[in-house]
Amino acid sequence: MESRVRKVRPALLKGFDQEFLPPEQLQFNALVELIRRNFERFGFLPIETPSAERIEVLTSKGGAEKEIYALSRLAAEEDDEAAARGALRFDLTVPLARYVAMRERELAFPFRRYQIQRVWRGENPQVKRGRFREFYQCDIDVINRETLSYLAEAEIPSVIYSVFREMAIGEFVIRINNRKLLKGILQHFEVSPDAATPVLRALDKIEKEDEAAILGELERHGMRAASARELYRVIATRRKTDETLALLAELGYRNDMYLAGVDELGKMVEAIRLFGVPEGAFAIDLRVVRGLDYYTGTIYETTLSAHPDIGSICSGGRYDDLASYFTNTRLPGVGISIGLSRLFARLKEASLLRPLARTPAEVLVTTLAPEGLERYLQIAAGLRSHDVNTEVYLERAKIGKQFEYASKKGFRLAITAGPEEFARGTVKIKNLATQVESDVPAGEIIPRVKSMLDTKAH
Amino acid sequence: MESRVRKVRPALLKGFDQEFLPPEQLQFNALVELIRRNFERFGFLPIETPSAERIEVLTSKGGAEKEIYALSRLAAEEDDEAAARGALRFDLTVPLARYVAMRERELAFPFRRYQIQRVWRGENPQVKRGRFREFYQCDIDVINRETLSYLAEAEIPSVIYSVFREMAIGEFVIRINNRKLLKGILQHFEVSPDAATPVLRALDKIEKEDEAAILGELERHGMRAASARELYRVIATRRKTDETLALLAELGYRNDMYLAGVDELGKMVEAIRLFGVPEGAFAIDLRVVRGLDYYTGTIYETTLSAHPDIGSICSGGRYDDLASYFTNTRLPGVGISIGLSRLFARLKEASLLRPLARTPAEVLVTTLAPEGLERYLQIAAGLRSHDVNTEVYLERAKIGKQFEYASKKGFRLAITAGPEEFARGTVKIKNLATQVESDVPAGEIIPRVKSMLDTKAH
Repeated sequence: MESRVRKVRPALLKGFDQEFLPPEQLQFNALVELIRRNFERFGFLPIETPSAERIEVLTSKGGAEKEIYALSRLAAEEDDEAAARGALRFDLTVPLARYVAMRERELAFPFRRYQIQRVWRGENPQVKRGRFREFYQCDIDVINRETLSYLAEAEIPSVIYSVFREMAIGEFVIRINNRKLLKGILQHFEVSPDAATPVLRALDKIEKEDEAAILGELERHGMRAASARELYRVIATRRKTDETLALLAELGYRNDMYLAGVDELGKMVEAIRLFGVPEGAFAIDLRVVRGLDYYTGTIYETTLSAHPDIGSICSGGRYDDLASYFTNTRLPGVGISIGLSRLFARLKEASLLRPLARTPAEVLVTTLAPEGLERYLQIAAGLRSHDVNTEVYLERAKIGKQFEYASKKGFRLAITAGPEEFARGTVKIKNLATQVESDVPAGEIIPRVKSMLDTKAH
Repeated sequence: MESRVRKVRPALLKGFDQEFLPPEQLQFNALVELIRRNFERFGFLPIETPSAERIEVLTSKGGAEKEIYALSRLAAEEDDEAAARGALRFDLTVPLARYVAMRERELAFPFRRYQIQRVWRGENPQVKRGRFREFYQCDIDVINRETLSYLAEAEIPSVIYSVFREMAIGEFVIRINNRKLLKGILQHFEVSPDAATPVLRALDKIEKEDEAAILGELERHGMRAASARELYRVIATRRKTDETLALLAELGYRNDMYLAGVDELGKMVEAIRLFGVPEGAFAIDLRVVRGLDYYTGTIYETTLSAHPDIGSICSGGRYDDLASYFTNTRLPGVGISIGLSRLFARLKEASLLRPLARTPAEVLVTTLAPEGLERYLQIAAGLRSHDVNTEVYLERAKIGKQFEYASKKGFRLAITAGPEEFARGTVKIKNLATQVESDVPAGEIIPRVKSMLDTKAH
């Protein structure tokens, strides 16, 4: 009978397919909460923005058009502004700019916001590399009016450090560079403004390609062979932070851009240390290049030391003006972004995620005898009122099936009572990990459960 | 110079415009967390599904087409499945059905899931009534295979009760009815299957329209005047739960559907009491009708006693088969939904939301003297390591401006130290609510801050 209905294949859209079973969802949610907690620890305030914005807002900076998903109505309808001129956001920075410009007079500056939401980007999805078309970003930004202290830039690594230390996914390095410094170096080598972008792009590949290939590319973009070799040598050198600073001082490139960059980088390193980030957790790395037009000062990329293949897990930088497309107020800022969907996928693949409880409820009250229902429900209510998340098995099923359910869902304790226990005024509490069962007087259930849950973590 | 750039007006799309300033966002987030906590207290598991699904999945049940937002790419691109055949979900039930059908073999049944996510619906937005085109829903459902105990239906009001009691937004009533009972009543009055929908729709207006209008409508749909009056009288009567049950027993309508409904309703009431829901918090209300085809047993609507104008703040019901469009497995279930965006808007309008902290950080360390930076940062790091969210004011500004920032953002304490304090080895801690300032030795900052934060809640 039922099969007369023509079935629809239950499937997901390509790129819109990072969907979890509950145990993974709990792990994902735990990461979100960890990130949120650390952002709030530093005084960042939450905001959320709508999923769809006006197309002219999204494309204000230009260049993103081809990645953007626009909205329409399946059955056309008049007077639907979202369908006529709306599209899904592709990042959280453009919406932030729109938000700050709209609410400039109501916000307290420096405005420190965090935002943990989904974004949508029409890129080629690659599940193995953790690239999806719909994904979560976790961003913080500090935005001020007219000026912004370099200390705001120096604080960022301490927030990153706080997040990933607590995440406990192994050693990581917050790699720091400065866009003024990079520009100054290119100026020194007389790289034309037109060639700056491809030259930086070539340098960006130092970790992936061999020297000859990169030198070839630099020469193709107009550099003399000797200059290309020197540029390569400067950028590729990996040294301790103070040695890099010493090298930069020695090089003696004399243009203003270079000198400003060296000065900023030096002050930044000093302040990062004051902020309490240990020496091993950050490093100047001249190979960090980032996007080209937006960032104007310090830039950041964070990598896991044991898993360089995962790539940057957190990156961002300093910019001169957040919302120049929306307002005349100059709004300098600094921000970073954690691509959480990608990070989660890669951490899972690398088995770097700690196992977690598979259910937020810890206790299952099984239901052996229908006449015991009132007792079962009272036990559960009592536990819940003492902050113990508790589920009652409400279907009629043999006890074996109920225990099977308990173990599949991952409860820690199961409480069982039948006619025998009712007569004696006790219940059985079973530790589902050890399978040890004990008789407990009805009046002692709550303290006993609490102590059993306390004594052994997962 | 800057104004040469043509500005884009920073504005939101109509219906995509529930966007908060940080203090409101904190209130909203607190509600989300409260709901999540209560769902987890009963053993519900979190899932999230992608924002966009295949159109044939979304339209499988039919009837929703004209509300659905489809996706396309701003600049057309091949091989983008989401753009070719994807659309945003309009509820969380269809995605749940697809999810359960896809993952049937991996889930533990009865599957108890909660889901707190945005949905998108091309309806006419009315900000005043809290109706948006993008909004949050908070759903729970219990789904089993083949059979589902009536106890699953009876548990739902205890979850609703737990949520709204903790929300502390005033007295509320969970109104309960049964679709079999309604069908049986219509059968008794020989309402034709074609007329059932308009008749129920007419009865649904009992709270809003006067008797004559409704009787007229019932007669227009083929009912005799005497039958219409009796039907109206039965449905409209407001009694205590046990009196209603007695009335239903007395009425003596003898068809099977009616008898099944009365029986279910009676068992339901008995069980709801066992689940610990107090008498004043629930009631049988025959006027509760809900959508027509989907629900097959108990239906729920929750209203605030002092604010009937807000309408139902939580509703749902029992259904026979969640995913008949995707799988042959029969999946009966029961679920409810809280329309959080609408609820939040209406609660705000009715001033029913408790004021909350305006910042998750409680302490601002002001920065009076540049040479004190290291001290300031150490104080903040010390507090954070003791779980006190702490911000350092990092811009150069006069102390008055820093205090202004502190009060605008809503910190509870401000710590100040200048050359005098450095010399004495103390800091000043100011309670920003009382404006009382005290000198505290540097070594005692952490315990003193902790005790000041403990002694007086907001």
